Amino acid sequence: MSVTSPKGFRAAGVTAGLKPSGKPDVALVVNDGPDATAAGVFTANRVKAAPVLWSQQVLRAGIVRAVVLNSGGANACTGPQGFQDTHRTAEHVAARLTAASRQPFGAADVAVCSTGLIGERLPMDKLLPGVDAVVRGLARDGGDAAAAAIMTTDTQPKTTVKTGEGYTVGGMAKGAGMLAPALATMLCVLTTDAVASSAVLDAALREACRLTFDRIDSDGCMSTNDTVLLLASGASGIEPSPLELTAVVTEACHDLAQQLLADAEGATKDIAIEVTGAASEADALEVGRSIARNNLVKCAFFGNDPNWGRILAAIGTTAATFDPDAIDVAINGVWVCRNGAAGDDRGKVDLTSRKVTVRVDLHAGDAATTIWTSDLTTGYVHENSAYST
Amino acid sequence: MSVTSPKGFRAAGVTAGLKPSGKPDVALVVNDGPDATAAGVFTANRVKAAPVLWSQQVLRAGIVRAVVLNSGGANACTGPQGFQDTHRTAEHVAARLTAASRQPFGAADVAVCSTGLIGERLPMDKLLPGVDAVVRGLARDGGDAAAAAIMTTDTQPKTTVKTGEGYTVGGMAKGAGMLAPALATMLCVLTTDAVASSAVLDAALREACRLTFDRIDSDGCMSTNDTVLLLASGASGIEPSPLELTAVVTEACHDLAQQLLADAEGATKDIAIEVTGAASEADALEVGRSIARNNLVKCAFFGNDPNWGRILAAIGTTAATFDPDAIDVAINGVWVCRNGAAGDDRGKVDLTSRKVTVRVDLHAGDAATTIWTSDLTTGYVHENSAYST
Repeated sequence: MSVTSPKGFRAAGVTAGLKPSGKPDVALVVNDGPDATAAGVFTANRVKAAPVLWSQQVLRAGIVRAVVLNSGGANACTGPQGFQDTHRTAEHVAARLTAASRQPFGAADVAVCSTGLIGERLPMDKLLPGVDAVVRGLARDGGDAAAAAIMTTDTQPKTTVKTGEGYTVGGMAKGAGMLAPALATMLCVLTTDAVASSAVLDAALREACRLTFDRIDSDGCMSTNDTVLLLASGASGIEPSPLELTAVVTEACHDLAQQLLADAEGATKDIAIEVTGAASEADALEVGRSIARNNLVKCAFFGNDPNWGRILAAIGTTAATFDPDAIDVAINGVWVCRNGAAGDDRGKVDLTSRKVTVRVDLHAGDAATTIWTSDLTTGYVHENSAYST
Repeated sequence: MSVTSPKGFRAAGVTAGLKPSGKPDVALVVNDGPDATAAGVFTANRVKAAPVLWSQQVLRAGIVRAVVLNSGGANACTGPQGFQDTHRTAEHVAARLTAASRQPFGAADVAVCSTGLIGERLPMDKLLPGVDAVVRGLARDGGDAAAAAIMTTDTQPKTTVKTGEGYTVGGMAKGAGMLAPALATMLCVLTTDAVASSAVLDAALREACRLTFDRIDSDGCMSTNDTVLLLASGASGIEPSPLELTAVVTEACHDLAQQLLADAEGATKDIAIEVTGAASEADALEVGRSIARNNLVKCAFFGNDPNWGRILAAIGTTAATFDPDAIDVAINGVWVCRNGAAGDDRGKVDLTSRKVTVRVDLHAGDAATTIWTSDLTTGYVHENSAYST
């Protein structure tokens, strides 16, 4: 049920014809209230897609009443015309919702998300009729249809439902490539029927993203369209403490993040890189990311090769505090590197399962973190060399 | 002839049995003088191989009389024992050269370079007899044999000869993967019969590396063993101006750098990324590198896909000065992106040849630079997932 699991939300997903495949490509999530507080986190890429620029404006007021999402086109690098297309889409959604619900909606109530190929205008002659259809299709159980309509190279929809004390958080996400810090090539809409101000939602969402989406790094690439939205209807009447709400939202984001990673393009391994003994959390993150982004490390895991030397070479590129002769590395529990040199027999490492754990102990302090990544495979190269041709 | 083209040098390459393939794996270059000035540039990786730590010490005095190089093992991440192995190798070379030439050589006169798998001790029982053999094999025309003995995954040896006014610069290099700024996974020995102080050599070598090896970036990975040495015999009796010598050394390095790139693991494209209109050279370099390291961009070129959107997304991750709506991008001469949006017909881009040129105009100033990279291919993944298994 995803985004429609919490009370106060309707959703739908339809086929507008944006995708050559004829699969669903337009989704809508509507918050029927009574509240319409919201928060959003967006890509840190300075080349931002038109819908990101638009939705950032919408979020300034802390109110979102509807989110329209399309796959089949990112509307990024499309210039002023692309921004006008986004604006027109939001206006069209607002007009149709106003007509359907006999409540006044404005374009500024409508967040817009797009995903797909960069650099091409959206076919508005298909998108606007798609908006008409998706408004007609809105239903209390439309969450799954919406989740299916935002898929691009995803092999399956990603949804989550987590419950707090008397309230629910639901969510859907899409994303498979371009997973990198400062968000993945992902769109995510989270909903809750909890009562929360936009400020509380904003703090909860930022903390949840910091601990989940920001720590998956499948290919080191950062997209132009990343958007994570959190909408609250207040329909449960329950106002959880900010700490409690943050915990449930983080759970939901963690669930979705792991689904994104498991579906990363071409991946055959889900790799958790646990960095311990760091002088600071920033050091732990830098070391974890340097390993997660190292193509040679990632190729080695694809080849079931516990190549700890490449891991040390990756660590050596960072500015983190460490003594190269004091680093220990374990792969799936075998300490193959001790004191910066060969440790236990690497032949003992079993890399046949999809889940892989790399543990790095820097012996430089007490800070720790985990970064999740995947391997670099011939499948990844194939998928990303053939995507737009 | 490579390193033996300048007067005053002898070299050799032999098979010591370090490589399972039985191919040549130990090389020696000896400077017979009259001078023995030298300079070196080493990896910026903080996890440095034992031979790097050793050779950095040797270079402090600005004198190198011999360089021994082995493939078949990097002697990196091998702890104090690995350093002792390097020391012992240098001592052994010095003893054999002393015996053979009846001139006193010390271990401190001998630079050491190693390349191959990280994390394993060198088999000294094979390496030291190899040193005996390579000393016996020293010859005035041994440059090509030396160049062949330092190859790892290289498909062909890399050598160069450039001439100045009355003097010569020769060189050999190896390297195919882990090409990244702050040097590639490369070893390079340059020789000259020019007369030059170690300070002049040092300045010439640093400038040459900055403009050549530091600007190739095949896979964004930085090795533990990178070493570039420049040895001067003074045998020509000619002392060129520092500027003139720098130009010839840069020519030689450029030639070798292009050979490294052309032989990058699995690559099917040699891609020059020319960044113009940057506010500073640092900005131009940051933008060039962000494109060169972006896996999605590199996969697109493998697929002959002029995917300028991915190039813009890569530029957007930098802190360089630019307006996203003012960026122009040309691929092989076709301006597929103008003002941050679609420009000329991308169907006009011909990507069938190996040489590819990407031109990015940031319209933010007058600085420019070029970064060279290659595509990311299924061949790269295959080679690097099967390398050590």
